Amino acid sequence: MPNINPDRLLGDLRALRSFGSHGTGVVRPSLSPVDLEARRWLYERMQDAGLEARIDGVGNVMGRSRHAGPALLIGSHSDTQPTGGWLDGALGVIYALEVARACAEDEQTRHLAIDTVAWIDEESTFTSCLGSRSYCGLVTAEEVETACNRDGVSLTDAWREAGLDGVVTPPEPGRYLGYLEAHIEQGANLERDGKQIGVVTAIVGSRNFTVRFQGQQNHAGTTPMPLRKDAGMALINFAYTVNQAFQQIAGPRTVWTIGRVAFHPGASSIIPGRAEMHLQFRDPEAARLEAFEAKTHELIAAANRQGPVDVTLELAGQPIQPADMDPTFQQHIAAAAEHIAPGKWTHLPSAAIHDAMFLAQIMPAGMLFVPSINGISHDFAEDTSDADIVRGCQVMAAAVASILTEAKTS
Amino acid sequence: MPNINPDRLLGDLRALRSFGSHGTGVVRPSLSPVDLEARRWLYERMQDAGLEARIDGVGNVMGRSRHAGPALLIGSHSDTQPTGGWLDGALGVIYALEVARACAEDEQTRHLAIDTVAWIDEESTFTSCLGSRSYCGLVTAEEVETACNRDGVSLTDAWREAGLDGVVTPPEPGRYLGYLEAHIEQGANLERDGKQIGVVTAIVGSRNFTVRFQGQQNHAGTTPMPLRKDAGMALINFAYTVNQAFQQIAGPRTVWTIGRVAFHPGASSIIPGRAEMHLQFRDPEAARLEAFEAKTHELIAAANRQGPVDVTLELAGQPIQPADMDPTFQQHIAAAAEHIAPGKWTHLPSAAIHDAMFLAQIMPAGMLFVPSINGISHDFAEDTSDADIVRGCQVMAAAVASILTEAKTS
Repeated sequence: MPNINPDRLLGDLRALRSFGSHGTGVVRPSLSPVDLEARRWLYERMQDAGLEARIDGVGNVMGRSRHAGPALLIGSHSDTQPTGGWLDGALGVIYALEVARACAEDEQTRHLAIDTVAWIDEESTFTSCLGSRSYCGLVTAEEVETACNRDGVSLTDAWREAGLDGVVTPPEPGRYLGYLEAHIEQGANLERDGKQIGVVTAIVGSRNFTVRFQGQQNHAGTTPMPLRKDAGMALINFAYTVNQAFQQIAGPRTVWTIGRVAFHPGASSIIPGRAEMHLQFRDPEAARLEAFEAKTHELIAAANRQGPVDVTLELAGQPIQPADMDPTFQQHIAAAAEHIAPGKWTHLPSAAIHDAMFLAQIMPAGMLFVPSINGISHDFAEDTSDADIVRGCQVMAAAVASILTEAKTS
Repeated sequence: MPNINPDRLLGDLRALRSFGSHGTGVVRPSLSPVDLEARRWLYERMQDAGLEARIDGVGNVMGRSRHAGPALLIGSHSDTQPTGGWLDGALGVIYALEVARACAEDEQTRHLAIDTVAWIDEESTFTSCLGSRSYCGLVTAEEVETACNRDGVSLTDAWREAGLDGVVTPPEPGRYLGYLEAHIEQGANLERDGKQIGVVTAIVGSRNFTVRFQGQQNHAGTTPMPLRKDAGMALINFAYTVNQAFQQIAGPRTVWTIGRVAFHPGASSIIPGRAEMHLQFRDPEAARLEAFEAKTHELIAAANRQGPVDVTLELAGQPIQPADMDPTFQQHIAAAAEHIAPGKWTHLPSAAIHDAMFLAQIMPAGMLFVPSINGISHDFAEDTSDADIVRGCQVMAAAVASILTEAKTS
């Protein structure tokens, strides 16, 4: 089993943190100057690790092993949220680098083909999971043309500014056994259950909707209750009903959220003429997502029958299908975890989306989680203990070696 | 009975409309150049009517009859909403002028003391009912110091710019029998019931609250439902419960409105950590307002017992107590209405606030309504038929003559 170098691992993680460091957090949005600097630094680290490094046309940093396949592609994203934590993405990128180095230093594993990657824009600065979806052929020309960041800078201009041509190189045919990604959990399940490693079973799918209510704006003093077409009240009744109905059909992992509401014109003395809300639900099971969507349509129809406000439902963004992680990869990660942290690991689904979700559409994919302190993520306070970081990387290295060794010898 | 002059009445109404005319509507916010021009024009019209006119230190245009009391003060406001209708306020001001003129031209009524007024800033450009509340001694120095318009101009600067010293002259002791105000209904009750005149019984009181919900912001994917402290969901549950509970205790004239809601930070994938809503209710009966307020406190307490989100209630603005209109004034207006429009009048409360509400705190007050076409007000489309405008003024003149004549002879 290859041995990872804890000091080198933690040193590189802290070095990457320094690009865009803000207090305990990191501000390194995709294609920002500091993100591009970090990518050049990662390019050098991959070169130093003996990999053939390159930055592709969309901004992904790829490190190709000089060994023939079967290969594993390992990595995560190196961009952050607008006010992000230091480990979200970065952990998986530096794990990949360290696993490649550790395997290259071990007589038993030095011949294994381990390719590394730091994807660009998982965090939706321009568009969600831009790097991994581009690699998998899942981004349309139209999406590229319309994508822009919150400052209104278009993706194509940002690429041009960075000297990138926007052209992705697809996966080398026949090379890959699959893709592996390590990540912080971003939830509190591992911590709560006293576990050190999570073997991800599936990544949850999701649906996002905008629900619109069209009533009649009017004077809040002079319009009697029975004559009102109050779009705000209709929204409240609908949201309440949704909440009650969803409780009845929820599975153990289902979550749903009304994250945004707006009443128009939004004044104390005016009956809202229009209102809208965002409705999102997530589940690891495709059938449950379908059931939630059907229930939503049923409740919209009921609200329209009841009147007097018109209700319409609009899909926001693409539906995201749940992605099952490869069972064989899960077995290898579980075996490595049991060896290194006996009894301190568990299977669990990922409630957040990850680049692995899209890689799973073109090759077997697996994910490993380490605990998040207090379950906090997407926040400057995001953190994981050094011990958990080191242990997770050792499990990753053992699992990678075991998967590739089995493939070579079978 | 004095006879009003329909052409003079409609001519003056249209002349006043020309100050700030925008299409069918009027833009004449308080202390704007066009509002001050209109006030100087009203000053001249009051002079022409034989009244001792003056513009007081806050901007009210007052026309004092040269006759000794007992007097009636008659009028309304001449400022408008930011995008206002042409009759809201203006109608009552020109009625006052025409009633004073018609009475002065009639042998039987020429000795009556009829004082006229055009209040300033009923429409809250700086602060609601500034002119009438100042006159009644209901505006504090602190309120004056902090008041400013939506452009950030302070009331004191606006007064200085207009050459006004902000000092109001209080009512002349012993002079007034009371105050009368005519207004468009701003609702559709008269029109719906085929009535031409409304005798106002009371002006509704109101309460405005801000309800705040404090939960815990978190990731909408990774936070299981039982662990959430979703401030948005708590708001929805509370608002739904309020709506159900209020239906049980509502009177025939009660209205309640949730005109504004906000979830923070307001993103699809983030559980709202904070939320707030505006809650307003109105009723002509003080006891019912008390019952609504008590119920609101009860529901807040219940929500806090249930948890997990903290809910607080904050009074927004001053509570407005309902104002009963003087029964004797109501009888005189009703008798005049029955004489001029037999069977085509009705008693009704005012669902909107008016200057008369505050005058009622210092002297008997009465109000007369004429129909609003389609119930529309606070909008450029606000209108009333010429026939209804003329008839309303004739009823007003008859009621004023009858009240003052009875007082003189009793």
